[in-house]
Amino acid sequence: MTGWEIGKTGFDIKDAAADGTKFLCANGFMGLRGAPEEAFESFCPAVTLAGVYDRNGDKWREPVNAPHPLTVRAAFDGAPMALGDRAPESHEAGLDLRHGVYFRDTAFGPVRISSRRLTSMADCHLMADRMTFTCQRAGRLTITAGISRRIWDINGPHLFGFTAGTGETLLLSARTGEKGILVAAAQRAVISFPAEERFITGDDGVFRVIEKDVRPGEKVTLSLFAAVWTSLDAPDPEEAARRTCDSAAGQGFDICLKAHEDAWEDIWDACLIDMDGPEEEQLTLRASQYHLNACAPRHARDMSIPARGLSGQTYKGAVFWDSEIFLLPMFLYTQPEIARSLLRYRIATLPGALQKAAEYGYRGAFYAWESQEGGAEGCTDFNVVDVFTHRPVRTYFRDCQIHISADIVHALREYYEVTGDRSLFEQGGDRVVLECARFYLSRAFRRLQGDEIEFTDVIGPDEYHERVSNNAYTNRMIGRCFETALMLEEIFADTPGRLQALKRDLDYEEDWALLESAVKKIRGPRKRGGVIEQFDGYFALEDCSLDTVRRRLMDPREYWGGDHGVAGPTQIIKQADVITLMALLPEEFTDEEIDANWAYYEPRTEHGSSLSACMYALTACRTGRMEAAWRLFQKTAGIDVVGGGKEWAGEIYIGGTHPASNGGAWMIAALGFAGLKVKNGVPSLDPRLPDEIRSLTFPITCGGKKYTITVTSDGGSIDPA
Amino acid sequence: MTGWEIGKTGFDIKDAAADGTKFLCANGFMGLRGAPEEAFESFCPAVTLAGVYDRNGDKWREPVNAPHPLTVRAAFDGAPMALGDRAPESHEAGLDLRHGVYFRDTAFGPVRISSRRLTSMADCHLMADRMTFTCQRAGRLTITAGISRRIWDINGPHLFGFTAGTGETLLLSARTGEKGILVAAAQRAVISFPAEERFITGDDGVFRVIEKDVRPGEKVTLSLFAAVWTSLDAPDPEEAARRTCDSAAGQGFDICLKAHEDAWEDIWDACLIDMDGPEEEQLTLRASQYHLNACAPRHARDMSIPARGLSGQTYKGAVFWDSEIFLLPMFLYTQPEIARSLLRYRIATLPGALQKAAEYGYRGAFYAWESQEGGAEGCTDFNVVDVFTHRPVRTYFRDCQIHISADIVHALREYYEVTGDRSLFEQGGDRVVLECARFYLSRAFRRLQGDEIEFTDVIGPDEYHERVSNNAYTNRMIGRCFETALMLEEIFADTPGRLQALKRDLDYEEDWALLESAVKKIRGPRKRGGVIEQFDGYFALEDCSLDTVRRRLMDPREYWGGDHGVAGPTQIIKQADVITLMALLPEEFTDEEIDANWAYYEPRTEHGSSLSACMYALTACRTGRMEAAWRLFQKTAGIDVVGGGKEWAGEIYIGGTHPASNGGAWMIAALGFAGLKVKNGVPSLDPRLPDEIRSLTFPITCGGKKYTITVTSDGGSIDPA
Repeated sequence: MTGWEIGKTGFDIKDAAADGTKFLCANGFMGLRGAPEEAFESFCPAVTLAGVYDRNGDKWREPVNAPHPLTVRAAFDGAPMALGDRAPESHEAGLDLRHGVYFRDTAFGPVRISSRRLTSMADCHLMADRMTFTCQRAGRLTITAGISRRIWDINGPHLFGFTAGTGETLLLSARTGEKGILVAAAQRAVISFPAEERFITGDDGVFRVIEKDVRPGEKVTLSLFAAVWTSLDAPDPEEAARRTCDSAAGQGFDICLKAHEDAWEDIWDACLIDMDGPEEEQLTLRASQYHLNACAPRHARDMSIPARGLSGQTYKGAVFWDSEIFLLPMFLYTQPEIARSLLRYRIATLPGALQKAAEYGYRGAFYAWESQEGGAEGCTDFNVVDVFTHRPVRTYFRDCQIHISADIVHALREYYEVTGDRSLFEQGGDRVVLECARFYLSRAFRRLQGDEIEFTDVIGPDEYHERVSNNAYTNRMIGRCFETALMLEEIFADTPGRLQALKRDLDYEEDWALLESAVKKIRGPRKRGGVIEQFDGYFALEDCSLDTVRRRLMDPREYWGGDHGVAGPTQIIKQADVITLMALLPEEFTDEEIDANWAYYEPRTEHGSSLSACMYALTACRTGRMEAAWRLFQKTAGIDVVGGGKEWAGEIYIGGTHPASNGGAWMIAALGFAGLKVKNGVPSLDPRLPDEIRSLTFPITCGGKKYTITVTSDGGSIDPA
Repeated sequence: MTGWEIGKTGFDIKDAAADGTKFLCANGFMGLRGAPEEAFESFCPAVTLAGVYDRNGDKWREPVNAPHPLTVRAAFDGAPMALGDRAPESHEAGLDLRHGVYFRDTAFGPVRISSRRLTSMADCHLMADRMTFTCQRAGRLTITAGISRRIWDINGPHLFGFTAGTGETLLLSARTGEKGILVAAAQRAVISFPAEERFITGDDGVFRVIEKDVRPGEKVTLSLFAAVWTSLDAPDPEEAARRTCDSAAGQGFDICLKAHEDAWEDIWDACLIDMDGPEEEQLTLRASQYHLNACAPRHARDMSIPARGLSGQTYKGAVFWDSEIFLLPMFLYTQPEIARSLLRYRIATLPGALQKAAEYGYRGAFYAWESQEGGAEGCTDFNVVDVFTHRPVRTYFRDCQIHISADIVHALREYYEVTGDRSLFEQGGDRVVLECARFYLSRAFRRLQGDEIEFTDVIGPDEYHERVSNNAYTNRMIGRCFETALMLEEIFADTPGRLQALKRDLDYEEDWALLESAVKKIRGPRKRGGVIEQFDGYFALEDCSLDTVRRRLMDPREYWGGDHGVAGPTQIIKQADVITLMALLPEEFTDEEIDANWAYYEPRTEHGSSLSACMYALTACRTGRMEAAWRLFQKTAGIDVVGGGKEWAGEIYIGGTHPASNGGAWMIAALGFAGLKVKNGVPSLDPRLPDEIRSLTFPITCGGKKYTITVTSDGGSIDPA
């Protein structure tokens, strides 16, 4: 590892899937997993497409993996050279984070295979790979390069009716089973040498076979240009894919690489945190920023980021509250155009949220817990598989995690407060806010005796405790949703007719009156000695240690939550819950309150979610627990490089990159260590540097202006950039 | 089997526990399981005491089994003669239902052992056993008769600090671990012959060893008189037990037997249903009436009947809603003094119900789901053990089966309406009704928008579906509870000051006003084509067949309910739910409604509870489905003789007698087949005899008068007795 490289030496098939995640190249449109070119299924090779979903039978809906157009298998004198099939003499692979380039270098006997591969940040449909074969002795080199159908699918297959085309540019296209979306992949090879060529078309895909007799010491270079388009992007995706390849081939690999690198440099200019501190954390913070930027939807106007980015099909490729609460801040403070895309995704998918609420008999907007295209709910009623019986288990994530709508409203408000830009409200955000508030009005209960508003049968951020009442986080975020709805009057004070028209349009007059009275009546948190009770009855649960609960596990993969889980009947929680509330709304709590709750909840938290450590780190900075803050920062930033995230929930594989932690790492550094706050578009700092860091320098954009933030142990400065 | 005898020939240790239940002798104070005198632990021998509970460590609280004072082991020429240890040449055992006498007849080589044994209906502390040993050849007979400590305990041991006494009367006493209740057992032997005697006192108990050389053909008779008293019954239970034995021994076995038989004759005079029909059903109906009468608390003023009677410690010896809904009617219509005791138990345990409500943050009376002494809740938060992991599972029976309070109010009202006697209301029943209504007022929710009252997070009679909202049965029974509370005004119209004083005493003025407005606002049932939806969302559950669900079982003992159970996510229900409502309040539904709901729900019902078949039978009579009614009657009446009840719920043994089915058999015959109804103390009939029955004759008592009911295919008659 260097300051900008992650990589590893040696090969073990057991690590192949995890390495495919670590060494991912992505550009928002697609994610090319970091498997070597010859990878077969157990490497989990995939080109995962953003926003293209399919359902096979009654299996889970998930994103579609395109045919893999950078598949290359080589042989020398008839002996195949493929990792997994044959032990290499040496192998090295990794990722250049600065430039988003995957590299490998493998020796099979007399042949050394090197490559550099990218998914272009300059053209989101383009991938390129330059492979070099250096042959120590004379022999016959056979290279089979093409578009493979042998791709990783969790709940597939998703593509049917394949059509293959050969010629200068190979083509393979097929349609998704559910919606008939045409997915076309193309590949064009440019070789540096005369060679014999032929084509193979079959169940494995379409391939060009290149054969050449090499001299001792000869170096053979092959440049591959590949493209993926779908019928969602272009009326004729096959033609579009062919053109992308042809145009890139015309420019050549170096020009494609340069354009790609320049695009990455622009990204780093906008957001790179330059940390003068330990090398490992420098690297992991960069890796976090790389992975989060790599999956940002730069090509789309209203798209969000799945919980595992573009690293595969896990978590159904769905968008969770992670987007608003964990991923959004970095973009919001550094690349607001991407923040807008994430939020416009929610505006665009309001119809899905209205429909989900109606399905449950509610009014307003109940956003999907696992949102797919159009806001379709990807979360099923049976979202965990029991390890003991292999049966799906009824979970209530879909029904009860109602805080998602309030989280979205919170993010819209954050956007407005940091940027000072009300355009998202003008473009439908106002409607989202009112419909979310309306959902909660229709979900609210009062006791027959008493006037307080309660939210019963919910799940808070801590998913291990299902179907609880008056979760402190949920109740307060709903309160904030109501406040934000009422705030629209002030935001549009200069054009009062606008809000009036909207209310009329939504038939909202009665709801507005109800909102005005309800906003003060939401049940506040119960407390014991300054500690907020996470939900009604939480303090009455068994109060045992995390170790005690862990010792009760009978299978390392078993699910901890729900009535059958080891954590369910105890005070052990999956992730920050009360503390998330305090991290999101720090001004509503005193240092003493935060400290008391931190001290109570942190030891009771499994941190079984990548959404946990960063919230504890942010609040630890606030109360000066800098040792803990640093430890949690290390954990958060290191998750995709060092590892340590959960790979299994029950029997369900949940591996992949962790955009929420990636965003969390930025938040801890910028909002925690530097203490960055923006109020009415004006930034301020309250630095809390851990001992391990000498300085932090990073750019931000807020209130439409760019600044350079510098923090040292002597304090901080905010300079116009 | 004869018309009044159940029994069996041959011996198989595998059946010993089940036979111990079938051949139970009980008298309301104690239940002597039908194991032979020499029984060791695997026969589950026990003298289960009513109303005496103990908890060992953190195991479940359960009734205490007394030391067994009718334990006899015999040997001939040194060879032991004990079932289970040695295969007998012949064996027969059984129960004379008419007289409540257990009998056995066993041949071990040259010796034949016969006995007749009883728990006295004339003196509830007394047991007696007359054993005869007939010896074909000369030899030495050794009889070891005493009080055994080797008794069946599920969650024991419960007795500590044993004290033994020998002499003419053997004594063994000990104290319960939790509350220090002294339990004393005594035994006195009367022998018909001179013999050598010595005593053995040890860890097994205290025994008298009788040795005698017998002549060929000699018949040796031993009469044993035993007694159990506890410090709950007498200040000096040891002395009391000794006296009971001495007095009985003075009278002799025949006089004790006669007094016992006379007491049973009185019971039969009050309640026997004489059914001219198939012999098997004649017998099973008698067995049902026997078992229900055997556990009736004739000795106590305010005691109820546990869900498994006095047949052991299963179901924690707790009192369920079974008492009010299933057991009460037979007593109410035939022996109202016992009905009063059952209901006074609820009046006496009101403090426990107030305390339980307060624990959950509610007002009023929330009766225990599994009520033990003083109304203590025996139901734990973890009431099922998972067969796959052997872990206790969080269940919500304790928290959510709120219908129990309404069931009790319903029973109080039934008592009043059938007897015309308001004395129970005067003795505290009025307070129970008001506190139950108050509980529901405090548990009621309204949506923020809307005025209807909803009961969310409940469990109805069908326990497989936990934490549902607006269970039709629960909502309607709560409505009836409210109506009954308001009805008190009319019941005490002649003494208006009484209710006013009570309201003042209970600070009830505001609640009363709320009741008056709430009674009309409870959410009524949702319907689809005349079929009532069991709870909100029930119709949206998977609609598959009972067989489909059964095929999903992976272990025959696994629990069907809850989120992990095979039935939970489907429309398959454990037991009658909507149909129970229709059976209890038949006047609120038309024949068409009942028929439509019967047709929908019956095929979706597992009948996995003994509380199910009888409700379906009652409603089947109403709509003329007589074939089904007869089949369900057979199942209900046969449960303790023919068998077929569930023995396991998860890993928990739930075998024992089924008082609820026993009561159900009476209900089907009297209320279903004869169509008996009592309104304002006046009986009427609406006979619906199945083809299998020629006539039914039975006594009832209502409105303070006795009647003889006769029903034939020509109609029915009601004659003053």
